[in-house]
Amino acid sequence: MNQFAILHFPDSEYAYPLDENTLRLVLKTARGERFKEVSVLWNNKYDFAKRRNFTRMRLLCNDAMYDYYVCDLTCADVRFAYVFLLTLPNDVEYYFSEEGVTSEYDFKHGYYTFFQYPFINAADAVSPVQWAKTATVYQIFIDRFCRGDMEKNDTYITQPWDLVPGAKDFAGGDIKGILSKLDVIRDMGFNTLYLTPVFKSPSNHKYNVTDYFAVDPMFGSDEDLRRLLAAAHERGMHVILDAVFNHCDESHAFFRDVKEKGRASKYYNYFIVHGDFPEKYSPRHSERSEESPQTKLCNYEIFADCTYMPKWNTSNPEVREYLIHIALTYLSWGVDGLRLDVADEVSHVLWRELKAAAKEKYPEALLIGEVWHENGMYLGGDEFDGVMNYKLQKVFADYFANDLLTAREAADKLNHIVMNHRRQTNEMMLNFLDNHDTPRFLRLCGEDEEKLRAALIALYFSVGIPCVLYGTELPLTGDGDPDCRRTYDWAAKPRHALFLRELARTRKILPAGDFYATTERGALVLVRENEEARAKVYFGKTETDGEIIFEYENMKIIKEKK
Amino acid sequence: MNQFAILHFPDSEYAYPLDENTLRLVLKTARGERFKEVSVLWNNKYDFAKRRNFTRMRLLCNDAMYDYYVCDLTCADVRFAYVFLLTLPNDVEYYFSEEGVTSEYDFKHGYYTFFQYPFINAADAVSPVQWAKTATVYQIFIDRFCRGDMEKNDTYITQPWDLVPGAKDFAGGDIKGILSKLDVIRDMGFNTLYLTPVFKSPSNHKYNVTDYFAVDPMFGSDEDLRRLLAAAHERGMHVILDAVFNHCDESHAFFRDVKEKGRASKYYNYFIVHGDFPEKYSPRHSERSEESPQTKLCNYEIFADCTYMPKWNTSNPEVREYLIHIALTYLSWGVDGLRLDVADEVSHVLWRELKAAAKEKYPEALLIGEVWHENGMYLGGDEFDGVMNYKLQKVFADYFANDLLTAREAADKLNHIVMNHRRQTNEMMLNFLDNHDTPRFLRLCGEDEEKLRAALIALYFSVGIPCVLYGTELPLTGDGDPDCRRTYDWAAKPRHALFLRELARTRKILPAGDFYATTERGALVLVRENEEARAKVYFGKTETDGEIIFEYENMKIIKEKK
Repeated sequence: MNQFAILHFPDSEYAYPLDENTLRLVLKTARGERFKEVSVLWNNKYDFAKRRNFTRMRLLCNDAMYDYYVCDLTCADVRFAYVFLLTLPNDVEYYFSEEGVTSEYDFKHGYYTFFQYPFINAADAVSPVQWAKTATVYQIFIDRFCRGDMEKNDTYITQPWDLVPGAKDFAGGDIKGILSKLDVIRDMGFNTLYLTPVFKSPSNHKYNVTDYFAVDPMFGSDEDLRRLLAAAHERGMHVILDAVFNHCDESHAFFRDVKEKGRASKYYNYFIVHGDFPEKYSPRHSERSEESPQTKLCNYEIFADCTYMPKWNTSNPEVREYLIHIALTYLSWGVDGLRLDVADEVSHVLWRELKAAAKEKYPEALLIGEVWHENGMYLGGDEFDGVMNYKLQKVFADYFANDLLTAREAADKLNHIVMNHRRQTNEMMLNFLDNHDTPRFLRLCGEDEEKLRAALIALYFSVGIPCVLYGTELPLTGDGDPDCRRTYDWAAKPRHALFLRELARTRKILPAGDFYATTERGALVLVRENEEARAKVYFGKTETDGEIIFEYENMKIIKEKK
Repeated sequence: MNQFAILHFPDSEYAYPLDENTLRLVLKTARGERFKEVSVLWNNKYDFAKRRNFTRMRLLCNDAMYDYYVCDLTCADVRFAYVFLLTLPNDVEYYFSEEGVTSEYDFKHGYYTFFQYPFINAADAVSPVQWAKTATVYQIFIDRFCRGDMEKNDTYITQPWDLVPGAKDFAGGDIKGILSKLDVIRDMGFNTLYLTPVFKSPSNHKYNVTDYFAVDPMFGSDEDLRRLLAAAHERGMHVILDAVFNHCDESHAFFRDVKEKGRASKYYNYFIVHGDFPEKYSPRHSERSEESPQTKLCNYEIFADCTYMPKWNTSNPEVREYLIHIALTYLSWGVDGLRLDVADEVSHVLWRELKAAAKEKYPEALLIGEVWHENGMYLGGDEFDGVMNYKLQKVFADYFANDLLTAREAADKLNHIVMNHRRQTNEMMLNFLDNHDTPRFLRLCGEDEEKLRAALIALYFSVGIPCVLYGTELPLTGDGDPDCRRTYDWAAKPRHALFLRELARTRKILPAGDFYATTERGALVLVRENEEARAKVYFGKTETDGEIIFEYENMKIIKEKK
């Protein structure tokens, strides 16, 4: 038995409440390790020394290295103590507790070494945002989606709509344009909009905000935003806005004050300035070379290499109060969720305070962080509901587009990602194939639309919220930023619109519960199942008895009762 | 190479800031795995694709399964990206990233898979309580330490001072008694008192509180507590009070209101009652038998099996507000720290809110949770400063008293415990050999005072705050609760008082920095070291060149410059 592979972390995504009386346990063991039985001995912690219940665990799935065993324990007394019992084929037994793997276990002194979930406090459980469970999201980069206002001052537009815009171009899309296409979007099966930033900012993407409280005149008026929210809500749709709290634009009033007054500004500590005044270094000084890789571009903290994007000092409570006030203001307008930009560079303290403040008044507000890397630290229930699921996107890209993974490898990686989170969290992850920061998925597929369709099936079948970038239905193509932000061709017939609509319809009848990946005869198979039913999607030919609820080429989604 | 043993968790106790520009990294590998070199490739995340710095890691210590490699990275740009590089003796190289262990690494797409510490936000770092670094704590169980008030109504006393009290006995100790012995305590080298609960409660231990705002008349007046705080502070001493926020006594006004009015009480949701009124079941009904192990004793949630200790519903924000108000009130009186009883059964949300509220006004308030089990989830910086270090106590008991561990096993377990926490956290753990809930350590030692002394040396040498139970200096002995709570014999000469004083003096000159355990010629050796100096304590005979700063029997503490 590989002892190094036996892993469990109490009070984490490996041990968490599914409801007020049920604890889900997950145990990792080496992939393919042959056990006669994997089980758990448990009771309330005060009776554990005297007697234990016995529950067998089931092997749910595996990744490249580990098997994942799971079980659900239900008890009126929710002060759980537990020790795992590993039985080898030769009936040799091992215990696994906080002491590690041992051949004997001293139940009398278990209060020192058993695993515990000491009490299911409702306030600690990851609580689902109900509408997120059925959300299908359409992401819009506003300047490029649709121009609705033909009367506006459009001298800012640098580029005719039918050309491919460059990084700094303005094409003229606006909120009125979105409003005019709301039914079109809904009719493709989307019930949620995610808009990139709408507030005052000199750029076309508006991720560098000048004024958090005024809609940018290029995009329309505050009234236009209110109208869009109302129109969406009338249709039973939700709206997620981008909230950029890592940094602002250098033209933001607070930073201008610091540039003017330096340390004397009351906003000096709103930013992180290493000197009396913010200062950009001359191009020569700031040139990053092989010889001096750590040369700074300026004496204040910024986003990426953008000296025009000063970073907020979210260690300062006043800054947190200001940013939380902004978030609450958006939610008070009826905004249904926030996508928090560059979330990983912002202090955890801001996110904790923001979530507490937001959920107190708006428990159904959805909070999604932009995190490309390991994200468990944001998803314990106190910071975000979900994150943008870049880990999943990479697997989809490497399997469906880049042909870098076998079906088995893809299944392994999908299971690894999903088993890293509580079930409630998985249901609130924002899943996508591409977005405004990545190449168009179609481009990764070498313009092969069949590959795109296969990946879309996987996207809609997977646990989590599918989020589709505007124009995928046409389809639009393009390399990474800025080429993925092309203008929508309203003259073209959207070839994949019905396909997306079909997928959204199918998604509604998938069983809620566990999600995992496996392979059958070399084909990737995704599975959703609960105690009553199971659905599978086969990416490859298969014979199956279940009810076919979706079929395209050699891919089928089937559903069967258990 | 054992890939299962290669472990690292970003943004955790394995990757955390030591100061505003320095990141400490810890990597686990299989114990004894032979590497030519373990190193890390790193840069700020925006330049990582282009170029990397190279830093070699050093093997700090090991536990039974793992070696622990560490390094500290300092950079002006604190947006760290890193990938480990493992070089085998045959020069074969492996990378270790968020992708796992791989023989190649695609730096170009590293933004998907490098480990990161995205930005050192000051607000997220675990910040030390300065006075805790030099604290030596004397724990007092008030009813049994010293009676100072001879005028009080003492009809509650059930037992003469010189007899061994039973579980429900009252012996008469009080705050005036502590006040009268403050200099005695200080002269043994203690600069901090930790008092078990002082507030109104029908029991001798007072862990079931009736009124959180009134000192129990058995122990004195509110004025007595204020006087004790003032007297301690005059002497440069600190005072930690016990705060019991998991439950109260059934005589608490709020619970009495619920008993009277049931669901109609405005305090109904302050507790967790499964019914219209709180109800205790008849003894027969409540008898826990082999056949029905989950029979409940009452229809409301309680502490342990104590139906007279109703549990607070800390998922209710009003309850959290009430309890936080209590904590802030204590701190406003000048209380320096709180020991939070049964902390693991309380909601994490309360602890987060309490810490935020307490530290905002009282950044030097020390918050210690009572957690017997895995405790990392409380020690990320947002809940407690430290916990009662039961894991350490068990090793000390099993090595010095119970003879269950070899020196090597003890060293392994000590390293396992210490490597589970950030350095700052280790410095705020409350370490002890025994307390009011455990047998006296002397009893575990079979009354062998030499063994007790050896363990005390280890306690004072280890990283963390040494906490000594009243009477250890006599020494007092006894089994677990209630026998460990015997009365102090003021007629006896405290045989170990000078020994403790010597240890406290020695502790002050140990180098701050890393702490770990090892063995030399079969003897347990504890080490404290930083870049300038190293101190070691040898539990067994040794030849050494360093300066001897403490010596007792065959145990020496030596200090050497590096």
